[in-house]
Amino acid sequence: MAKEKMVKEITSMEEDFAKWYTDVCLKAELIDYASVKGCMIIRPYGYAIWENIQSIVDGLFKEKGHENVYMPLFIPESLLQKEKDHVEGFAPEVAWVTMGGDEPLEERLCVRPTSETLFCDHFKNIVHSYRDLPKLYNQWCSVVRWEKTTRPFLRSREFLWQEGHTLHATAEEAKAETEQQLNIYADFAEKYLCMPVIKGQKTEKERFAGAEATYTIEALMHDGKALQSGTSHFFGDGFSRAYDVTYTDKDNKQIYPFQTSWGISTRLIGAIIMAHGDDSGLVLPPAVAPIQTVIIPIATHKEGVLQKANEITERLKKVCRVKMDATDQTPGWKFSEYEMKGVPLRLEIGPRDIENNQCVVVRRDNGEKIVVGLDELETRIPEILKEYADGLYSKALDRKINMTYDAKNLDEMKEIAENKPGFIRAMWCGDRACEDELKEVAGVTSRCIPFEQEHISDTCVCCGKKAEKMLYWGKAY
Amino acid sequence: MAKEKMVKEITSMEEDFAKWYTDVCLKAELIDYASVKGCMIIRPYGYAIWENIQSIVDGLFKEKGHENVYMPLFIPESLLQKEKDHVEGFAPEVAWVTMGGDEPLEERLCVRPTSETLFCDHFKNIVHSYRDLPKLYNQWCSVVRWEKTTRPFLRSREFLWQEGHTLHATAEEAKAETEQQLNIYADFAEKYLCMPVIKGQKTEKERFAGAEATYTIEALMHDGKALQSGTSHFFGDGFSRAYDVTYTDKDNKQIYPFQTSWGISTRLIGAIIMAHGDDSGLVLPPAVAPIQTVIIPIATHKEGVLQKANEITERLKKVCRVKMDATDQTPGWKFSEYEMKGVPLRLEIGPRDIENNQCVVVRRDNGEKIVVGLDELETRIPEILKEYADGLYSKALDRKINMTYDAKNLDEMKEIAENKPGFIRAMWCGDRACEDELKEVAGVTSRCIPFEQEHISDTCVCCGKKAEKMLYWGKAY
Repeated sequence: MAKEKMVKEITSMEEDFAKWYTDVCLKAELIDYASVKGCMIIRPYGYAIWENIQSIVDGLFKEKGHENVYMPLFIPESLLQKEKDHVEGFAPEVAWVTMGGDEPLEERLCVRPTSETLFCDHFKNIVHSYRDLPKLYNQWCSVVRWEKTTRPFLRSREFLWQEGHTLHATAEEAKAETEQQLNIYADFAEKYLCMPVIKGQKTEKERFAGAEATYTIEALMHDGKALQSGTSHFFGDGFSRAYDVTYTDKDNKQIYPFQTSWGISTRLIGAIIMAHGDDSGLVLPPAVAPIQTVIIPIATHKEGVLQKANEITERLKKVCRVKMDATDQTPGWKFSEYEMKGVPLRLEIGPRDIENNQCVVVRRDNGEKIVVGLDELETRIPEILKEYADGLYSKALDRKINMTYDAKNLDEMKEIAENKPGFIRAMWCGDRACEDELKEVAGVTSRCIPFEQEHISDTCVCCGKKAEKMLYWGKAY
Repeated sequence: MAKEKMVKEITSMEEDFAKWYTDVCLKAELIDYASVKGCMIIRPYGYAIWENIQSIVDGLFKEKGHENVYMPLFIPESLLQKEKDHVEGFAPEVAWVTMGGDEPLEERLCVRPTSETLFCDHFKNIVHSYRDLPKLYNQWCSVVRWEKTTRPFLRSREFLWQEGHTLHATAEEAKAETEQQLNIYADFAEKYLCMPVIKGQKTEKERFAGAEATYTIEALMHDGKALQSGTSHFFGDGFSRAYDVTYTDKDNKQIYPFQTSWGISTRLIGAIIMAHGDDSGLVLPPAVAPIQTVIIPIATHKEGVLQKANEITERLKKVCRVKMDATDQTPGWKFSEYEMKGVPLRLEIGPRDIENNQCVVVRRDNGEKIVVGLDELETRIPEILKEYADGLYSKALDRKINMTYDAKNLDEMKEIAENKPGFIRAMWCGDRACEDELKEVAGVTSRCIPFEQEHISDTCVCCGKKAEKMLYWGKAY
């Protein structure tokens, strides 16, 4: 009864995917709306997911020698303007500070939408010789982009992210960094978020403002839309030239160093929701789940139940993130509450279980009930979590495979785009006009030129001229 | 030689304490100046100190049941204005966003100087019943206060901090929270930063804007000035009333809940610099030092030296944060470099040491050289770090005791304030006029009404009327 009531509170995916998404964000207590339009409050349960993401990714960065720094929140307008493409890309969507207390500022300040310009300004101060390179920097912070249309996690006026900014003596080294970081993102998405991704390069049209090359990981959501989930940019020496950053090499020559930047954001929480969630709510990958196992004692008034549940909780604390819920809500209410919150495993323990020296473990993803002997808890729970994670990944992979279509010509492209949500693989001549056209007539944008190329046809899906590359296309968040 | 050269680059404390401070900030590579006046760039070495502070303090908070959240960066002007005292206190020093892209905003947004107003607005949404209380929230973020005069870490227009915001059913519970958090700050300062503090209450004049009571920890810097190092505020139900936050109690009555907030910031890095530093640079407490032991191999061209240094590094990684510097700089250059950076222990290992199966460990605080057998490294290094931390604390404690003076009347107060840098303990009638007067004639402000009261005299140090309380006075950052 209680369960039905809870479940009814979420719109089903079928009925209205966008509404389902917002319902999950609010009902699983990930966010609350804020008094400033387009901004969000990240509540403890949502923030704990972000903390887990941070902790894993930060470790992966540090293993590769990256150091964290903190740059100011504000960028003077004149500093932002030094790189022409960059300012054109960002100026239309920045928030401007014009007053400090009661006094108008001499120069208005932009609230950082991204910090390339600040890093360049700093690099100029601290990099002089080849001995000072490379600089492998990262920062965790919030950024602001004054978007018109917003959605929690996916597109909000302020969001949390990390932005890596590195400076290298050679273009080769910078390119290798760009690639290394994209691989870290892809591995993180697949291994920790159980979310398969396509790795590839963005077309010129979709490139980051000021970059020579932008690499991306693209994931497929439940509704067949693509989500750009992490990007890595190679800047060449363009920013160095614009900001006059130079170093003296071993032969005493002045060289413009080569720069990269790369980032992932709280958008990944949106990706998790839409990649794994179902009509009962969130389904969390164990690596980032704030609670990995919730213990629900059954018939708590019976002698020994609470004591046993407490004992199990203490034991499991050593092998996973565990919570015991001994509140006076009904088991049914608790079941649906933790389903809504996407807790991977529910462990039920009642008088009869105790008698049999066992408990029942229920998987959130498929409802499977597993009887586990109490003596083998510490080994079985991590195993089941691993099986659960593998299950999430293969389910998402199957979906990606089943929802990826090939189009050989414009008619096929239009037909698929209209009727079959998912990725569309199709050849492209390399011409931006064809990208514009496909957006216009089929409503799809190029997601990326995947590193793993395949031959779908000889000619461009749009204009019919000789094809250069295979692209992934799709509707995107 | 190399060492002398390095040391000469810092101004001595005696000569110019303020210049010494800035030199340390820059030369130890804690910060760089930013393009926005009054803001700072926190460099990897400075940020690593902050990460260590965060990690320890965050753990202490979570042990007490606090959860992290993230509130928006912006506060609509109308929201800020709901609590009269609060807006009066902060409005003169906030940065205002007035434009989003090319469009003027309908309502200007303040960049958060602190987030009580945002938390209240959120609490109003999520707190309804006594079952929803307490809320024990914290956030790590940056805040902006448009100060006229700025100094790295001590007073900058943007700084990093944590702000705890909690909501409780009763005033008693909220007061207990305020006290608990102040104690956490004091313990953290003393045990981890090796910095003795005075715990006490602020006078009404020095209270946080909108608070009923503000508690503080005050530390003494090398130059005898006080530094407010952490504060904890009890708001009563004032904010709840202003923001219309209520809950239904067990008897179905509507009650205004009671609120607290508490914070520490990157200012603590300034405190560390000024509490422990010396003319050779930083002196870091081990708990927050990015490198606890630096290993300097001597005569690296000799066979076996580098190999042994590497072996020791690997072994010590298990017991402390260790770095080995095998670059081609001279040992002298390295000695002064890591002295400047305040690394607690330097471990020297050369051919003769290896022959004798030993190494030389040098303490940064007092230069003491300790011969340590290579077989006992894993036990001795943590012991020496502990002794070093205890040494830092007692040195700072001695200084505090030696630089604390008692004043019985205005003449004594003026004489001490003029000639003896440090804390001044003196009685006070409770009248704000006397605080204003003492600021005027002696240049001192009330630091706090310490919890540990002592009787210095019967009468107020300023007006001579009957005294109510013993206060700590001083010049402050």
